[in-house]
Amino acid sequence: MVEATRTIHWVGGLDGVCRLIEQTLLPGELVEIDCTTKEQMWDAIKRLAVRGAPAIGVAAAFGTVLGARDSQAGDRAGFLDDLQQTLDYLATSRPTAVNLFWGLDRMRRVAHATGDLSVPDLKQCLLDEALTIWNEDRQICRSLGRHGHALLGEGETALTHCNAGGLATADYGTALAVFFAAQEAGKTIHVFADETRPLNQGSRLTAWELQQRGIDVTVICDNMAGQVMREGRIDKIFVGADRIAANGDTANKIGTYSVSVLARHHGVPFYVVAPTSTFDMATADGSGIPIEQRDPAEINRGYSEPNAPAGVGVYNPAFDVTPHEHITGIVTEFGVIEAPDTAKILDHFRKHGVLADN
Amino acid sequence: MVEATRTIHWVGGLDGVCRLIEQTLLPGELVEIDCTTKEQMWDAIKRLAVRGAPAIGVAAAFGTVLGARDSQAGDRAGFLDDLQQTLDYLATSRPTAVNLFWGLDRMRRVAHATGDLSVPDLKQCLLDEALTIWNEDRQICRSLGRHGHALLGEGETALTHCNAGGLATADYGTALAVFFAAQEAGKTIHVFADETRPLNQGSRLTAWELQQRGIDVTVICDNMAGQVMREGRIDKIFVGADRIAANGDTANKIGTYSVSVLARHHGVPFYVVAPTSTFDMATADGSGIPIEQRDPAEINRGYSEPNAPAGVGVYNPAFDVTPHEHITGIVTEFGVIEAPDTAKILDHFRKHGVLADN
Repeated sequence: MVEATRTIHWVGGLDGVCRLIEQTLLPGELVEIDCTTKEQMWDAIKRLAVRGAPAIGVAAAFGTVLGARDSQAGDRAGFLDDLQQTLDYLATSRPTAVNLFWGLDRMRRVAHATGDLSVPDLKQCLLDEALTIWNEDRQICRSLGRHGHALLGEGETALTHCNAGGLATADYGTALAVFFAAQEAGKTIHVFADETRPLNQGSRLTAWELQQRGIDVTVICDNMAGQVMREGRIDKIFVGADRIAANGDTANKIGTYSVSVLARHHGVPFYVVAPTSTFDMATADGSGIPIEQRDPAEINRGYSEPNAPAGVGVYNPAFDVTPHEHITGIVTEFGVIEAPDTAKILDHFRKHGVLADN
Repeated sequence: MVEATRTIHWVGGLDGVCRLIEQTLLPGELVEIDCTTKEQMWDAIKRLAVRGAPAIGVAAAFGTVLGARDSQAGDRAGFLDDLQQTLDYLATSRPTAVNLFWGLDRMRRVAHATGDLSVPDLKQCLLDEALTIWNEDRQICRSLGRHGHALLGEGETALTHCNAGGLATADYGTALAVFFAAQEAGKTIHVFADETRPLNQGSRLTAWELQQRGIDVTVICDNMAGQVMREGRIDKIFVGADRIAANGDTANKIGTYSVSVLARHHGVPFYVVAPTSTFDMATADGSGIPIEQRDPAEINRGYSEPNAPAGVGVYNPAFDVTPHEHITGIVTEFGVIEAPDTAKILDHFRKHGVLADN
């Protein structure tokens, strides 16, 4: 079995730490940092030290534990008030990935669902729930890989955008899980990784993960994806998702939309790989998904020297929305929703016992 | 009148130098370098110190002068042999921009067309021809701007890719000439500049040129162009060209093809702005245009820190081919070829007395 990247995990008991890979230093250095306060976790999410929708959901859960354990409240009511403050605070870290809110909501629900536990028991109960979320995410990655790799044939070449790998989850990824599962199944595959400007998650993180595990990977600049498709090099496209609206409209890293238009033009199947926790059934379509606008300095400066003059205007949305009509299928942990729309997604949820209001 | 960038020019007489802006240092530093040998000019073209199809044509002409003046030949035959060596040598610097070969061919023709001039007179004759090419290019830029800006209305927003500006020509550009001419005509316009990875000619050079002249410019990463079009922000697209085949298929900086697919999908008019010297009528369509593959280090390292791990595969074509069906019009110094194809281009050439075998 392919070993998972230790992207984020908890070390010790209730007085422990959340240890995570400082992803801004990859691929140059593999450094882990320990978060011991909710402020440190907020900062890690904001800075993209931890990123990727599923991993953000896990980070939100561990961040809640870090905030909750510091509560000085003597009774349940006071503790729940403190907890709400922590939840509200962590919710401000990033707006687009629905897994953040999903993770926070699960933590809130479990605290409220408990009977008359003591404050120390409530704190332990929250750590248990966070560990459950973390463990579930690991299982889900394996399921995504299993369902997804059936779509990728022996010897085929896939394109992916951004990083939907082990570094985006608690295990071996969503879109990249497809590649790891294909490799485990003995298939020889090739992957083109879009560089994914401005923060280069594709060239820094996806290329690193695939290289670590011996999968043949080629980095391209984002503007080369159309040409590579035109040359007939791409058999399938697999991307992750930050939020999927009820009709299947999918928010993902900026540039995913362009890839979907190019895929459609070239007749290349375009798959989204995401757990059901990434669906936001309360949002009818993509127009209701908030798009994070990030610091222009990410484009002007990136991680290195300036590549644009100071003072020039910069437009820097962090995500875009791929309309469901562009999506050949959405791979969930339960299988594939072909040509997704609201009815098919609700049907998929019903069939697999997933609550549509998760 | 908008002042031209002094991208490339000749200083002095036959014993002078070719002075050019070291474009790899922009926008950080505006430094000029002097080329005194053909080897220095070859290197400047190869390294992209001077780049952009029309400017490369001018550089080829001045480079020929630098090589020819060093000839020790005592007679015309010996001189023409030496000249051919210089031409063959300079032709190896970059394969895609047809202006390189066009410039070299003009220099060859003028030398052969002369009667029984002495070797010193032949050398002077070549310098005169290079200065003529340089001066013609300046006039052509103004014509391109005049014809092109009629396509861009007051208050409209254009998108451009790479740098087809003053830095790509001996005057104020091809695609960017449209914007400068619009500004001269009193129009208020806005320009989105694709960053244009891997060497960031958009964010480094186009943004710098537009900023210098007070035109409102916004830099985006290449992968954001689709999203910006989807948001309805782009009225027109203007790009340059490195070589245009007989049917209008246009080779231009990698990523132009993707922009054309996105433009088509969004119904945004897509214009190519190029002088007739950029047309290669001997090549029937884009499939016959050689595409330069460049050093993977341009993607791995760029001008700064590594952004991909060492040893990862990289695919780095420097150009792609936009099929003529994607092109709303080609702006030449004589006007616009709407929905270009072989017949319309030949017609355009005939009408304006341009030889189809230039």
